[in-house]
Amino acid sequence: AQVRVAVLTVSDTVSKGLGIDKGGPAAVAAVEKLGERVGGVKVVETKVVPDEVDQIQAAIKKWCDEDKVSLVITTGGTGLAPRDVTPEATKAILEREAPGFAHAMMTYSLTITPTAMLSRMAAGTRGSTLIINMPGNPNAIGECLDAIAVALPHALRQLRGDKRERHPRHT
Amino acid sequence: AQVRVAVLTVSDTVSKGLGIDKGGPAAVAAVEKLGERVGGVKVVETKVVPDEVDQIQAAIKKWCDEDKVSLVITTGGTGLAPRDVTPEATKAILEREAPGFAHAMMTYSLTITPTAMLSRMAAGTRGSTLIINMPGNPNAIGECLDAIAVALPHALRQLRGDKRERHPRHT
Amino acid sequence: AQVRVAVLTVSDTVSKGLGIDKGGPAAVAAVEKLGERVGGVKVVETKVVPDEVDQIQAAIKKWCDEDKVSLVITTGGTGLAPRDVTPEATKAILEREAPGFAHAMMTYSLTITPTAMLSRMAAGTRGSTLIINMPGNPNAIGECLDAIAVALPHALRQLRGDKRERHPRHT
Ligand code: NA
Repeated sequence: AQVRVAVLTVSDTVSKGLGIDKGGPAAVAAVEKLGERVGGVKVVETKVVPDEVDQIQAAIKKWCDEDKVSLVITTGGTGLAPRDVTPEATKAILEREAPGFAHAMMTYSLTITPTAMLSRMAAGTRGSTLIINMPGNPNAIGECLDAIAVALPHALRQLRGDKRERHPRHT
Repeated sequence: AQVRVAVLTVSDTVSKGLGIDKGGPAAVAAVEKLGERVGGVKVVETKVVPDEVDQIQAAIKKWCDEDKVSLVITTGGTGLAPRDVTPEATKAILEREAPGFAHAMMTYSLTITPTAMLSRMAAGTRGSTLIINMPGNPNAIGECLDAIAVALPHALRQLRGDKRERHPRHT
Repeated sequence: AQVRVAVLTVSDTVSKGLGIDKGGPAAVAAVEKLGERVGGVKVVETKVVPDEVDQIQAAIKKWCDEDKVSLVITTGGTGLAPRDVTPEATKAILEREAPGFAHAMMTYSLTITPTAMLSRMAAGTRGSTLIINMPGNPNAIGECLDAIAVALPHALRQLRGDKRERHPRHT
């Protein structure tokens, strides 16, 4: 079965046309690279929104509730800058948090740079969609996806109710 | 003093008699093994409930509020499968979260398998009881208890108000 | 620009004059040591409060909302002892959580002692102030500050809206 992925770029600058979107294309490229490895993964939607809670939430909710994609990756708005609200917007519409993904991304990112500590990535589920916040920095996105790539196919199958994934190790 | 432990198996399948409980006995065995090392640890209650928030909460609340056990370990329902709600049920009745236990279990489990990332274990206190979510996989339970075993006796004594544990390293 | 730091000691014992404050001075010394390395860091306020939610919150809110310090460090009340409520008091007045700091402090502390697991440190922002809970143990405070020292100047500049810190690695 096809894994349908949506990528949300959260950025005031990009949204206003004052800067080029680097995070979104980096996330798309990282997902496509994952698709080459595990097969059947496809980015079906992308969107840019400003750092506004309601617009972030509207985009994610549409993808989860109407389009029923398997995975939403957000990029940007996870830091400590005054306008960064992506994790707050995300957490408020999650049904279940999945802190293991944030943990694994943080642990791996900290081996690369201590400023990874500033990232406030959330992860969790809404319906049968997994939602994962990633930073805006293009290199960081690739590293974060690397940190979770092996577990991701299992996660998405388990979330869809696949019985063979009922008890992979450690769940 | 005796450390009284209760083990809750959360599983629709086991609850309906459609499968054997592997998580519960694995947790009991892991606790008994811990008891051999540190002494004075005893499983005093076990129960099986389906993946239903109210039944999970009722069992935990009885053990904390009436039976006043020292430690509740839950097994199962921590993953991403549609019915997995153990962490949500648990967090809603915790008075204080104890994220260090989840952190230590996750860090250790990720050294064993990346699918540990799917686990959404919560931990915290209610009254003078420590409550820790563990996965349903029997091997994972042993590994999770290994990850926290050294700290656990200190935690339980501190939670009971033991003054000698007022300032162990790092609290 | 000067980084203004406030240090809050949370302790019933110290507050009642029944014990000497070890955590507060250890935090001040650790901050001063950091200041020698990165320059321009100064402790401008210290206070002692008992383990009471409202008094903890009142002190932090004054420093964030009125005095607008850059960083609040609390010491004490993060453990599992019955009166330990610093993380609960803190989280309730944060606008945004910054779990990466807690993650980094926990990961580092666990390499030193497994009882670090008992610590329930929270971190996050309120206005343009970063608030970080640290343990009461003086050695632990130095270690926790070591764990975040490299990232801290970046965090504080980003939080103040410094554009050069808009996209450090991983945010
Ligand atoms: Na963590």
